[in-house]
Amino acid sequence: MSEARYTLGVDYGTNSVRALIVDVSNGNEIGTSVWNYETGNAGVHEDDKDVHLARQNPADYQKGFYEAVKGALADAASVGGFNVSQVIGIGVDTTGSTPIPVDADGIALALKPEFKGNLHAMAWLWKDHTGYAEAAEITEKAKAFPYLKKCGGTYSSEWFWSKILRCKRVAPDVFAAAHSWVEMQDYIPGWLVGKSKPSDVPRGICAAGHKAMYHTEWGGLPSKEFLSLLDPDLASLRDRLYDDCLTADQVAGQLLPEHASATGLPAGIPVSVGAFDAHLGAVGSGIREGTIVKIMGTSTCDIMIGGSDTPDIPGVCGIVPGSVVPGFMGIEAGQSAVGDLFNWCVDKLGSGSHEDLSVEALKLKPGESGLVALDWNNGNRTILVDPQLTGLIVGQTLHTSAGEIYRALIEATAFGARKIIERIEEYGVPIKEVVVCGGIGEKSALAMQIYSDVFGRPIRISRSAQTCALGSAVMASVAAGAHGSVLEAAKAMTGYKDVEYHPHEAAVGVYNRLYQIYTALHDAFGMAGNAVNVSGVMKELLEIRREVVG
Amino acid sequence: MSEARYTLGVDYGTNSVRALIVDVSNGNEIGTSVWNYETGNAGVHEDDKDVHLARQNPADYQKGFYEAVKGALADAASVGGFNVSQVIGIGVDTTGSTPIPVDADGIALALKPEFKGNLHAMAWLWKDHTGYAEAAEITEKAKAFPYLKKCGGTYSSEWFWSKILRCKRVAPDVFAAAHSWVEMQDYIPGWLVGKSKPSDVPRGICAAGHKAMYHTEWGGLPSKEFLSLLDPDLASLRDRLYDDCLTADQVAGQLLPEHASATGLPAGIPVSVGAFDAHLGAVGSGIREGTIVKIMGTSTCDIMIGGSDTPDIPGVCGIVPGSVVPGFMGIEAGQSAVGDLFNWCVDKLGSGSHEDLSVEALKLKPGESGLVALDWNNGNRTILVDPQLTGLIVGQTLHTSAGEIYRALIEATAFGARKIIERIEEYGVPIKEVVVCGGIGEKSALAMQIYSDVFGRPIRISRSAQTCALGSAVMASVAAGAHGSVLEAAKAMTGYKDVEYHPHEAAVGVYNRLYQIYTALHDAFGMAGNAVNVSGVMKELLEIRREVVG
Repeated sequence: MSEARYTLGVDYGTNSVRALIVDVSNGNEIGTSVWNYETGNAGVHEDDKDVHLARQNPADYQKGFYEAVKGALADAASVGGFNVSQVIGIGVDTTGSTPIPVDADGIALALKPEFKGNLHAMAWLWKDHTGYAEAAEITEKAKAFPYLKKCGGTYSSEWFWSKILRCKRVAPDVFAAAHSWVEMQDYIPGWLVGKSKPSDVPRGICAAGHKAMYHTEWGGLPSKEFLSLLDPDLASLRDRLYDDCLTADQVAGQLLPEHASATGLPAGIPVSVGAFDAHLGAVGSGIREGTIVKIMGTSTCDIMIGGSDTPDIPGVCGIVPGSVVPGFMGIEAGQSAVGDLFNWCVDKLGSGSHEDLSVEALKLKPGESGLVALDWNNGNRTILVDPQLTGLIVGQTLHTSAGEIYRALIEATAFGARKIIERIEEYGVPIKEVVVCGGIGEKSALAMQIYSDVFGRPIRISRSAQTCALGSAVMASVAAGAHGSVLEAAKAMTGYKDVEYHPHEAAVGVYNRLYQIYTALHDAFGMAGNAVNVSGVMKELLEIRREVVG
Repeated sequence: MSEARYTLGVDYGTNSVRALIVDVSNGNEIGTSVWNYETGNAGVHEDDKDVHLARQNPADYQKGFYEAVKGALADAASVGGFNVSQVIGIGVDTTGSTPIPVDADGIALALKPEFKGNLHAMAWLWKDHTGYAEAAEITEKAKAFPYLKKCGGTYSSEWFWSKILRCKRVAPDVFAAAHSWVEMQDYIPGWLVGKSKPSDVPRGICAAGHKAMYHTEWGGLPSKEFLSLLDPDLASLRDRLYDDCLTADQVAGQLLPEHASATGLPAGIPVSVGAFDAHLGAVGSGIREGTIVKIMGTSTCDIMIGGSDTPDIPGVCGIVPGSVVPGFMGIEAGQSAVGDLFNWCVDKLGSGSHEDLSVEALKLKPGESGLVALDWNNGNRTILVDPQLTGLIVGQTLHTSAGEIYRALIEATAFGARKIIERIEEYGVPIKEVVVCGGIGEKSALAMQIYSDVFGRPIRISRSAQTCALGSAVMASVAAGAHGSVLEAAKAMTGYKDVEYHPHEAAVGVYNRLYQIYTALHDAFGMAGNAVNVSGVMKELLEIRREVVG
């Protein structure tokens, strides 16, 4: 045991921070701890007058690091044979885009007395949509520039520039006081290694490339010419942002003694560059070429890596060199509502618990419900990239049960997922393997079997229950020199569960027919200017039902 | 009081029979009673192995007459000042098409020992759909004949010939034993006046014209040539059916002493010719030219009367001379699920009680839900005449509540109702007034206001809570000579409630926009071969919502 080496992965989620101590040789997870943010509503600061607003208090991030790490170390120590000196590196992942306004020293404005309690001075959490008008303006004005071609052609209200532009308009005092803005994924490592000054912060390619329109093809961040079309002050801000980005396997710096003594960690161990939770979740799921990793929760994020010749893929959120694995293009796609759609059945329709609805849904054969739904209750992120789309259910009779609707919604998310797979393959990136991580993969055999049947492919489940923190630990193991590359580290440290889902032939046939109906509805309601003949949809659903029920 | 005269209306429903004693001078209802059928499941005999099967035991009809009438007479007597000798006539309405196989003496086969308990020998209740394949066959084979042009072009599994043809195929012994078949609406009056023999039964135009393809234009019932295409035995049955039909204001005969003594009624008083419940419900709601009466319950039946020049109206279930008011064309349309759709929310989605959902729905402005639904969970009766259509809901977000869906379903039925109104007016029958009777009109101010706003017209509610029985009493008053015509009698004996619903201008504007969306969906999903552009539907709903919520 004495020669074992460990890295620490720290995963900042929406409501809590989680620390995980992992054996770099085999991925054994020997200690973990979760600390719930203590301010706001489960860590989220809201505004009764604006449902779009969601902010976080950076004080939670700092205390959260100390508490979660101390907890994980204590957990590891309780096993026996573990010594904290065996921890050789730290990796960090966070939500995003979650930009934080900071002063010239890199202190978050929210931590300064003069901005105490000011929502606009806090971290603008990924799911803050207050900048929806600004996002539309950016999308419109970017049409004359190349900046959106790597992110599906539409700029989102969840992203970096929408939020900063919104801040300028709604809280000019905060904007003026902000010397710069730092993504949460970069803020934490910068703080840990004493590189908080905006010009010093090690900036990760993941947030920059996926959310801030950064690309070497056009010299980094968007030009001042473009930014001044939005606001001249954004153009001047560009000088106080960054020109260079790093991949997450690189060393951001060494852990400061003050953080070491606050946690018990060894001072001076390397901290790797930060990245987004989903991207490192894919790493923690053992991503490799040909594998699509689906991080399934309330929404779903799909991550792949492709060769350097990966083309722009219309409707896919982001294609960024090195954002997942250095040397490969990181491909990000996603669905805006997955678990949230199932929760909607329970919470809003009041149709019973997930357990009861799953039991009822499990009894149904594919096609038996006679329903097809569109999974757009929270808009469509991929491949239509349109937040202004909504849900649809068709095929109801007076006998249609809540369990049938529940199953149809699961199927709808599977059809939406198949659209993403087909789009990516259509552009020459073959998919040989589907790996799922996140709560739904663990908890819902019903959903996983449906996905396998709808895809006509096997589905594997990531072994770790904490793939994002594990992915951070993988990055830390490379930064600390324990592995020569991310792929090598991931191969050693990650794996799959024994359970594997395989498509049933009969179900595949039925789902192929239902998918054609989904596609007709998808194109009819989702593609502007399209007149699609859907007049046979209801009869076809009844016919399928009759054949299936017999 | 001594000179007051009363008629007795007897209304046979699906689960019970109701008797009502009405003052012919002013419609005062002085006595009423309901008797629940005592055999089967609330009067309906079912088959666990066949959800389409629904039969009734004619024994319930006979006992039901005695019990309900005795109860109503006792109720009237309790008021004081009433003497049974003041009852001058009886009218009867029933469900339909509910054909009963009878022997040569007119005895229902189900009442004979050799057929005791045989479901096929019972009355084939209106909602029995076992003959769906036969209905499709009739529709197909009738294409070369004119028979369907008065009933929307499609023959229904609920109707006379579908059921008889089905009986021939599934229970040839019953078919062979049936000398003839008598509609329930005719069976009861025939039994009351001693004209049970098939050749003697006074046949009402209502069932004949609306359900048996009877029309003077082609010499009554369909030709033997046509019937023999279905089955040679149907052609021979035609000889044992009928050639002539009567309107419901005519005298079927005089009450037999045996029924008089069983009930306490005066022997020999006239019994008027029978008709369907919905049609006489319209009479009991004060129908006149320009009035559409909506009998709203689990489903909705729309009744109008038009001049003799009323054209065939595509998609309208039936246009039959004299089926409602003698001298006028009776026009029947309908929606297959109205109250049933609201019940679906409660019973199948499990979204709470009607009361709770109504409270929530009442708080919403038109357009606020962001939803539009199609009301086809039980198919579409008018104007698409297609049982193979199903429901659709579009516009859901993750915030969509059960109350919003409940309201959207009410609105959907209102849009469907508007389609019927527009179709009828399009063919030159102007609608000046909308009158609602039935449970929903009484109980749901929410639904009535929505209907008024969707129609852009005022809505009146029929005064009587028992309009079908009242309509039968109106018919009896004409048969008994108390009034010279049905319109005169209806004017004297019926009325509206004080409450009246008026459209709100702002709501009318919003609903006109939502109705355009409903129409696009209606045409896209309901009209074969149609490619309708629905790609703007979701955005338009979001836009309307934004404008409405402000």
